[in-house]
Amino acid sequence: MRNRSSSRKSKKARRKRHSPPGSSPGLIHLEPDALKPIINTFVYAAGECQENQLRTTEEISKQLQAAPDKFHWIDVHGFGDQLFLEQLADSFGIHRLQIEDVVNGYQRPKVEEQKNYLFIVSRVLEEKEARLVNGQLSIFLGPNFVLTFQEMYEDVLEPVRVRLRHGKGLIRTSGSGYLAYALMDTVIDNYFPILERMGEQLDQLEEELIESPSRESLDQVLSIKRELIAVRRAIWSERDKLNEILRSTLDFFTDQSRVYIRDTYDHTIQILDIVDSYKEVTASLMDVYHSSVSNKLNQVMKVLTIISTIFIPLTFIVGVYGMNFARENPVDGSPLLLNMPELYSPYGYIGVLVVMLVIVILQVIFFFKKGWLTRS
Amino acid sequence: MRNRSSSRKSKKARRKRHSPPGSSPGLIHLEPDALKPIINTFVYAAGECQENQLRTTEEISKQLQAAPDKFHWIDVHGFGDQLFLEQLADSFGIHRLQIEDVVNGYQRPKVEEQKNYLFIVSRVLEEKEARLVNGQLSIFLGPNFVLTFQEMYEDVLEPVRVRLRHGKGLIRTSGSGYLAYALMDTVIDNYFPILERMGEQLDQLEEELIESPSRESLDQVLSIKRELIAVRRAIWSERDKLNEILRSTLDFFTDQSRVYIRDTYDHTIQILDIVDSYKEVTASLMDVYHSSVSNKLNQVMKVLTIISTIFIPLTFIVGVYGMNFARENPVDGSPLLLNMPELYSPYGYIGVLVVMLVIVILQVIFFFKKGWLTRS
Amino acid sequence: MRNRSSSRKSKKARRKRHSPPGSSPGLIHLEPDALKPIINTFVYAAGECQENQLRTTEEISKQLQAAPDKFHWIDVHGFGDQLFLEQLADSFGIHRLQIEDVVNGYQRPKVEEQKNYLFIVSRVLEEKEARLVNGQLSIFLGPNFVLTFQEMYEDVLEPVRVRLRHGKGLIRTSGSGYLAYALMDTVIDNYFPILERMGEQLDQLEEELIESPSRESLDQVLSIKRELIAVRRAIWSERDKLNEILRSTLDFFTDQSRVYIRDTYDHTIQILDIVDSYKEVTASLMDVYHSSVSNKLNQVMKVLTIISTIFIPLTFIVGVYGMNFARENPVDGSPLLLNMPELYSPYGYIGVLVVMLVIVILQVIFFFKKGWLTRS
Amino acid sequence: MRNRSSSRKSKKARRKRHSPPGSSPGLIHLEPDALKPIINTFVYAAGECQENQLRTTEEISKQLQAAPDKFHWIDVHGFGDQLFLEQLADSFGIHRLQIEDVVNGYQRPKVEEQKNYLFIVSRVLEEKEARLVNGQLSIFLGPNFVLTFQEMYEDVLEPVRVRLRHGKGLIRTSGSGYLAYALMDTVIDNYFPILERMGEQLDQLEEELIESPSRESLDQVLSIKRELIAVRRAIWSERDKLNEILRSTLDFFTDQSRVYIRDTYDHTIQILDIVDSYKEVTASLMDVYHSSVSNKLNQVMKVLTIISTIFIPLTFIVGVYGMNFARENPVDGSPLLLNMPELYSPYGYIGVLVVMLVIVILQVIFFFKKGWLTRS
Amino acid sequence: MRNRSSSRKSKKARRKRHSPPGSSPGLIHLEPDALKPIINTFVYAAGECQENQLRTTEEISKQLQAAPDKFHWIDVHGFGDQLFLEQLADSFGIHRLQIEDVVNGYQRPKVEEQKNYLFIVSRVLEEKEARLVNGQLSIFLGPNFVLTFQEMYEDVLEPVRVRLRHGKGLIRTSGSGYLAYALMDTVIDNYFPILERMGEQLDQLEEELIESPSRESLDQVLSIKRELIAVRRAIWSERDKLNEILRSTLDFFTDQSRVYIRDTYDHTIQILDIVDSYKEVTASLMDVYHSSVSNKLNQVMKVLTIISTIFIPLTFIVGVYGMNFARENPVDGSPLLLNMPELYSPYGYIGVLVVMLVIVILQVIFFFKKGWLTRS
Repeated sequence: MRNRSSSRKSKKARRKRHSPPGSSPGLIHLEPDALKPIINTFVYAAGECQENQLRTTEEISKQLQAAPDKFHWIDVHGFGDQLFLEQLADSFGIHRLQIEDVVNGYQRPKVEEQKNYLFIVSRVLEEKEARLVNGQLSIFLGPNFVLTFQEMYEDVLEPVRVRLRHGKGLIRTSGSGYLAYALMDTVIDNYFPILERMGEQLDQLEEELIESPSRESLDQVLSIKRELIAVRRAIWSERDKLNEILRSTLDFFTDQSRVYIRDTYDHTIQILDIVDSYKEVTASLMDVYHSSVSNKLNQVMKVLTIISTIFIPLTFIVGVYGMNFARENPVDGSPLLLNMPELYSPYGYIGVLVVMLVIVILQVIFFFKKGWLTRS
Repeated sequence: MRNRSSSRKSKKARRKRHSPPGSSPGLIHLEPDALKPIINTFVYAAGECQENQLRTTEEISKQLQAAPDKFHWIDVHGFGDQLFLEQLADSFGIHRLQIEDVVNGYQRPKVEEQKNYLFIVSRVLEEKEARLVNGQLSIFLGPNFVLTFQEMYEDVLEPVRVRLRHGKGLIRTSGSGYLAYALMDTVIDNYFPILERMGEQLDQLEEELIESPSRESLDQVLSIKRELIAVRRAIWSERDKLNEILRSTLDFFTDQSRVYIRDTYDHTIQILDIVDSYKEVTASLMDVYHSSVSNKLNQVMKVLTIISTIFIPLTFIVGVYGMNFARENPVDGSPLLLNMPELYSPYGYIGVLVVMLVIVILQVIFFFKKGWLTRS
Repeated sequence: MRNRSSSRKSKKARRKRHSPPGSSPGLIHLEPDALKPIINTFVYAAGECQENQLRTTEEISKQLQAAPDKFHWIDVHGFGDQLFLEQLADSFGIHRLQIEDVVNGYQRPKVEEQKNYLFIVSRVLEEKEARLVNGQLSIFLGPNFVLTFQEMYEDVLEPVRVRLRHGKGLIRTSGSGYLAYALMDTVIDNYFPILERMGEQLDQLEEELIESPSRESLDQVLSIKRELIAVRRAIWSERDKLNEILRSTLDFFTDQSRVYIRDTYDHTIQILDIVDSYKEVTASLMDVYHSSVSNKLNQVMKVLTIISTIFIPLTFIVGVYGMNFARENPVDGSPLLLNMPELYSPYGYIGVLVVMLVIVILQVIFFFKKGWLTRS
Repeated sequence: MRNRSSSRKSKKARRKRHSPPGSSPGLIHLEPDALKPIINTFVYAAGECQENQLRTTEEISKQLQAAPDKFHWIDVHGFGDQLFLEQLADSFGIHRLQIEDVVNGYQRPKVEEQKNYLFIVSRVLEEKEARLVNGQLSIFLGPNFVLTFQEMYEDVLEPVRVRLRHGKGLIRTSGSGYLAYALMDTVIDNYFPILERMGEQLDQLEEELIESPSRESLDQVLSIKRELIAVRRAIWSERDKLNEILRSTLDFFTDQSRVYIRDTYDHTIQILDIVDSYKEVTASLMDVYHSSVSNKLNQVMKVLTIISTIFIPLTFIVGVYGMNFARENPVDGSPLLLNMPELYSPYGYIGVLVVMLVIVILQVIFFFKKGWLTRS
Repeated sequence: MRNRSSSRKSKKARRKRHSPPGSSPGLIHLEPDALKPIINTFVYAAGECQENQLRTTEEISKQLQAAPDKFHWIDVHGFGDQLFLEQLADSFGIHRLQIEDVVNGYQRPKVEEQKNYLFIVSRVLEEKEARLVNGQLSIFLGPNFVLTFQEMYEDVLEPVRVRLRHGKGLIRTSGSGYLAYALMDTVIDNYFPILERMGEQLDQLEEELIESPSRESLDQVLSIKRELIAVRRAIWSERDKLNEILRSTLDFFTDQSRVYIRDTYDHTIQILDIVDSYKEVTASLMDVYHSSVSNKLNQVMKVLTIISTIFIPLTFIVGVYGMNFARENPVDGSPLLLNMPELYSPYGYIGVLVVMLVIVILQVIFFFKKGWLTRS
């Protein structure tokens, strides 16, 4: 179940990832519990696609040199081997600062052009055990290779692998730029089911808040609001990144790929639209909550007021006739006729009951006219 | 009647329309309950206008080739035939991604220039069974044809058809660009009656909220606010789209048409103005609601306070004279003269009543001076 | 007196002015109760100024042709004659869409350049019967003529007519552009007294809200806030319009006129400043209102609490001595000495009174220390 | 002491300064109580500085012609002589609209370039009798003269005069542009002590609001907030003005002066920073106020609830034993043993007291556990 | 412990730092308690690094001239010697206004280009004794020297000194621009632990606010909010400064250094992201606080209402049977059978007890159905 403590844990994780202030730039700061790297490669061309699991930088280089006219996707999961990462960076001529960005894992989506490759960062939103995991997909895109890094083993890119294996669509024939597009597009498409889940949660919370406004529901609304803000920030940068790619004159993307990237760009705008409308919904829900709470207070106060204003005067009246004014002077026994003669009237009791009944009826009419007896 | 559950249903519909993440781009993802396509065509020129209902791509191509110097409006409703859509796209040389945009049905208003045609998306706001339906009109504008797609059978474009049939104004003589303008203009004009309805609803809600602030009214205000935000988003993009058309140097629109498009552009600005002023009204209504609710609480508390502060002291006084302090010592019968001598005074009862009356009068004066007895 | 119902009427009027969706553009949609046109003309030059009231387009044309080297101000009030408007538009070569803008009457301030004239829209704010009327002054500015349209007979331009008649300042000698400037300047200057009235109303409301926060005052604050937003929107566009005129290279305005238009431009900025500071004042007044209301609730609750906490314990005490515990066993008449011996003490009554007095004194001290007895 | 009524008076003053709508532009609209002009002049060069008090335009012209190679500061205070102002304007070739701007006295800070002079407006903030006075310093800067106008006699420019007299720094040797800089810089520097005073007031209000949240404190916070907004608006335009001077290629300022103007520009940014952080403080203080008020209400309600919930049940119990159920049948004297046997038990009274004590103890424990007995 | 009074002191310090209005620009305004300057120098090149502590401008100049081909870092702490600062400025050709900026100590981060050096201001955030200290690092960057100024003796730059001493990374070999980068980067990196501390504090406050919403927690939230705003302002300008450096064509930074500065630029964006998300958290915490307070009020009112509505009617009933209506006429002893016959029924008392029990049960059911007996 989604809860506050888990979201807090993820925040802590994020905060702890930085190298100590003042340390040399480009220093790879590994976490002690980082996973061992696993390297999967796809070597593909128009009619073929070969899948391997490699272990060392040498194997990768050999494979790349063996088939320079095919396309290579080197897919690295896990950062737990500093030496390997450094060798890999050197082998592909990658700047140390960018490897630091890969390992650091909290970069905004961006694209950086280098002489012989592009460095692209995408933010991957996933739901694991009902909480939002904000991962990073780092892509190095060269003329005939795509090198990707992710921190965890499982990822959201399986559909792309399936398309590569089955040779569906343009994916095998349209170069490394198209593969990079397919990866970014899959990452963006993955935002939709998450927003769908949030939408359903918001619908459910709306019902809960109207029927019984509880603090738990409020906490959930606030938590979704924060998630939405995080999603908005990520997708806003994704949009800027894609726009930068579209406006730039980078060789790595063909005109054909650009048409598809423009489509992904449109998706980011759709996601922004949805996120913004959900933020409006959370604002409405806050209004609904506050109005429900003050409504409940009004209800409580109305009950108190009705009961009190009916019975307090009645209690006063019966109190009057509970007074012990003497009927006769204790000294000389002379009658004190002015002292509560009602008590000695044959219809005194009945009279008092009737008076009280009349008061109750008048008050009920008053409350009814005020509209206090109807539920609002 | 407009209600929350219907608006929720429409949201769900919107969320479910996306292809699964990672699927090939340009894939047409049809809903199982999509309507069968109906194709109406208008073939028109200065003095003539012929209306047909066709069935296949071949018939459309034949008609187009038969009269290349006339203008053709091919008006497709319903997306329930994937093969037909693909054939049509191929026949007009339309990019698959744009057909996906047509079917997907949740695009922001936009214009995309292609070599031989323009792709224009307009958002159509309609009210059906008192709820806001946010549809999409997709226009492919070529030199001598206008190809339009809509998901549902009924639409808001009937006035344009009537003008075509009757040859009113410039519509038959001013080329395909003018027809595209007329369609977009009709879509925009359709926003006005919807805003008028919202305006009336807001006026009515204002009266309701002042007289009896109910949760239902608040919900309606919040619901109109969300609708306004949706309208604003749509019209904002419409404005950008029209501006892009105005600033571009697209061949499809003559200078004459541009003057008219500028007029439509002015309409989008008017709509933005109205939407913004309505948003201000909803904000005021929220203020009115909250102030009404706290006013009601104040009313309730005032009644409670007045009744309580009047009767609680009186009840205390009569309680005093209900005490049973003995007049004489039970042991030796000696009189205990200090024990409640008032009870044995001939004017005790009258005196107490007078004292209580004075207290009540003083309190009423106090409340009157505080202004609590006047309705505020 | 300014009130909500009147402002609502004006909104309705505004909403009803649009042609039905999909109707031909440039169609003049007349209201059934439109006023018959009245045409006043000024023919003026350096030393002379002649004023006429004409009736037909022919007369206007004749007058214009009779004195082509003088300046002509054709001042039309009322739109109730479609034929006349169409003839006039044709006679001056005015585009039908702009005549539609004139009649429609809800255009943002703007300037549109045509080959042989400028089309300028100004929004005229007036106070009639203490409500804000948002009218439109449409100006067609040609090399030797100024053609103005207004919907109603009375207007705010009388001072310009007086200056024309008396030949004060530069008005007769500086061409048609200067006259157009004078008209626009007069319209802008008219905003100042309206803002002054709002300022006075806000000062008065501030006093009312502090002394007795009523719903009526709140409604007035909200109503002024909305008026301010309307004024802001109008003046913002006026500023943009004037800026566009200043930055453009339009022939109709001489460098001399531009200096004056820059002055008017500065006035729009002053008005924006005033409107913004008034908006701040309305926000403060809302704060003052809410704080006054919650203050009043606190006052009410304090009175209730003081009275209740003083008398409820006392009532309990006197209740204790109203209990009827028997002094002797009803069966054997043996004394039950533990049953309320206080009742039989010679100083019981006095003792109880003293105890109650002490309690009251202690509570008063407590309340005084809490600061509840002082007015806040 | 700073108070609301004074700030209201200043607003009224500001609103009344405009010429009637539609009057000729450039008309000097003098207030009846305008002060008579006093003209001080400084004629200075590298080694000398001569100070005079002149009376007429002729004297000024004569002095200017007598020493064309020296620098002249003509410092005019008071606008109460229309003829003098017009002669002065003509003598320096100043546009009438700018003289209107000088007299009108409510211009945003701006710079206007003319062929032979610069017109600069600065807003002067001063505190007089503990209220904020928003004056205007109008500077006409020519190649060898600086002509300044202020409405009142006293001003904030004395330090510049002292520097001129003593020849400190660059002031005598760096031309008229440097003198204009020194004047503008002194005006800006004068914002700092005002902000300091506001800061101290805010600190004091914070303490007041936490200890006893009164309406007076709230009013002061709102009043400071409005002052801050006024300061922000003025300084924002000052910054723009200085930026315009820095970016322009005006001859009147040497490169050396520009370095100093850039420093003044940095000061405006510092002031903006301080104003923004003070605005944040006022927002926090509003939060503190509202939270204090609702805290006080909670306190009041807690006292009421504790007293009521303790004594109401006890009062019920003693009420029970105040009932008069008969012990024996009045007709036949037979004992009614079921009627309140407790009253006849030897330990009845003690028992009831013990029961009530137990109830009180249980409630106190309940309240203690709820945390209601501790101050929060 | 972090507290309000300390933050107030720091504000006062900041406000007092300005020279009096109107004083000559470039005047160094020293505080009386300014620290005596301490000058540390590093003279370094590829293979060597020499560290000295100098005392006078002459020594600095001599050292600089002795090794013109090496790089010099002159690191000044403390401003308490006006003569030294002026001599140093003259010796390096530094403008007096910039020395004023150094000493003044409240500059926004900025970069100013001079002919032979760059002047860079960085804001240093540190936590000393648990409060945020906002210091200034002023850097003068020349072709072969870096001259830094700080007001206090201790600083955050120790890691850079260590890297210089140990010759780690590129620091000794990449010129003065790289050293300036390293200093700026260290300052930025120092923001992360501060944000981490704030994050932890916010987490803790969240728990406190949910469990027991106290005014102290609210004050802390408001105080963190203000700190965040201060951090945001500083880092925003840092980002602009770095961006200006990146976009400019300054000679002092090599292409290699620019890559690293771009990395620092990315860090500022990350910090902005974190600050923005923390601001959202503070906004949520405010919501949580207000909802907790109103929840507590609801709890209190519910207890009052439940107790009152149960016991007030019961008290009325027992009051009824405490009335003293006479059973027989005191004059003739005739029985008054209508006067409270219940009192004489054998099951009267039991009956009343049963009636009251039934009432209590009904009310408990009512409250249970309302959901008032469950904790919310």
